[in-house]
Amino acid sequence: MLIIGEKLNSTRKSVREMIENRDVESVQKLARIQVEGGARMLDINSSAAGGDREENMKWMVKTVQEAVKIPLCIDSPDAGEIEKGLEAHNWTYGKALINSITGEKERIDSLLPVIKKYKCAVVVLVMDERGIPDNAQTRIEIAHKLISVLTDSGVPLADIYIDPLVMPIGTNEQNGLTVLDTIKGVKDLHPDVKTIIGLSNISYGLPDRKLLNQVFMILAMSYGLDAAIVDPTDQRLMSIIRTSLTLLGKDSYCSEYIKAYREGRICGF
Amino acid sequence: MLIIGEKLNSTRKSVREMIENRDVESVQKLARIQVEGGARMLDINSSAAGGDREENMKWMVKTVQEAVKIPLCIDSPDAGEIEKGLEAHNWTYGKALINSITGEKERIDSLLPVIKKYKCAVVVLVMDERGIPDNAQTRIEIAHKLISVLTDSGVPLADIYIDPLVMPIGTNEQNGLTVLDTIKGVKDLHPDVKTIIGLSNISYGLPDRKLLNQVFMILAMSYGLDAAIVDPTDQRLMSIIRTSLTLLGKDSYCSEYIKAYREGRICGF
Repeated sequence: MLIIGEKLNSTRKSVREMIENRDVESVQKLARIQVEGGARMLDINSSAAGGDREENMKWMVKTVQEAVKIPLCIDSPDAGEIEKGLEAHNWTYGKALINSITGEKERIDSLLPVIKKYKCAVVVLVMDERGIPDNAQTRIEIAHKLISVLTDSGVPLADIYIDPLVMPIGTNEQNGLTVLDTIKGVKDLHPDVKTIIGLSNISYGLPDRKLLNQVFMILAMSYGLDAAIVDPTDQRLMSIIRTSLTLLGKDSYCSEYIKAYREGRICGF
Repeated sequence: MLIIGEKLNSTRKSVREMIENRDVESVQKLARIQVEGGARMLDINSSAAGGDREENMKWMVKTVQEAVKIPLCIDSPDAGEIEKGLEAHNWTYGKALINSITGEKERIDSLLPVIKKYKCAVVVLVMDERGIPDNAQTRIEIAHKLISVLTDSGVPLADIYIDPLVMPIGTNEQNGLTVLDTIKGVKDLHPDVKTIIGLSNISYGLPDRKLLNQVFMILAMSYGLDAAIVDPTDQRLMSIIRTSLTLLGKDSYCSEYIKAYREGRICGF
């Protein structure tokens, strides 16, 4: 399970201010605590900050990778900004992931040359010009089509991360199942392709969001999830992820679980 | 999800004493708190208590159903004791479930006439003379064979509860996945057959058992579990089961979740 830290996101006011003030110390602290929590990649989104957006992304990538020696997920709606992020990225720390491409022609045309040039991994949102399909079948079809487009351009299957698009369960009671069925459908068709979710959207508008997020994380893992953009400083969530891996047979002799328990990283409910 | 209360079990010293002392008040209290917690059936096991075992079972069934108007799960290794329980059972409260039959010839021969006579539902343990198979495939084969034996005797598919036999994850890291794959395999073959687990065995010998039990319950639900013998007075477990049902699309407009939250029955992590 690849844990991608979500906290360096400029939609949060505090992060926006860190970027605008070029606050190296705060950005690097936010990077470090996420890696200490268990993140093995960090999502970097600087698009909502004021000033030169490409310069902001470049500064974020460099500043973060001075503090933590892991690859980054370059998150932006803008192809130019993504390219600046990839240019600044330290590839000796691993392969960058870009977030994201969709089935929209304009987005494919602008990002495909960048993906080819940098040989980065890529998050694929299962939507196109028609919007976000309300059912798993159409989402799987869009995923399948985009996987073909990417592999035709030489992207290895293992570098493709399909995002089934988590929508709030509060607006449609089938929204959870649609995501779970999309994960399973994609993995059945393409076992080597990865699946990824941004977790917290599932609970939007409902009380006790953390409980909903944590339970949905376990359900998604049981359907074959490979990666998640989450808050790795949430110790209960990380404890639950570790416990799920143990129960799903991915922990020889339960040694990771026992080690985590001894180190105080297993939090009871 | 059928929640079956586990607490009226004579392997617990306190319950054994209640039975031996014919302590009506304590037994009825233990019945009531489980129903208040959300149980819709109670497991009744009196075999470990001293005295006349058949009389003990009869007394337990009558005493419990004087307090709570729900059907019972008659749990005993002994066919005579099970028959006494069925005889005493109040069928106007619903169909009794017997716990359990296995693939062992002697057990089938002694229980099949009882099942035919009382038209009760039945828990099937996926083991036979060879013991408990170490893999899901053989467990599914035993389930399939026993389903045939039971349906040939006129038992409806919906009255058959397959128990995939939860073994401690601490003794073999594949024990969780074997149970999950057995649940899925049985449901794929026979969608109308029910699946059931006794939850707590999964965590035996490991620290923080409640966390392991709770996470495994969510995983089992995502694989198609229909019923579980659990502690319904564990509010966090019940809260997590409710949340899983909501996220799995079984709660129109999330109304059960919101109602449970308003009534203080949703416990955050």
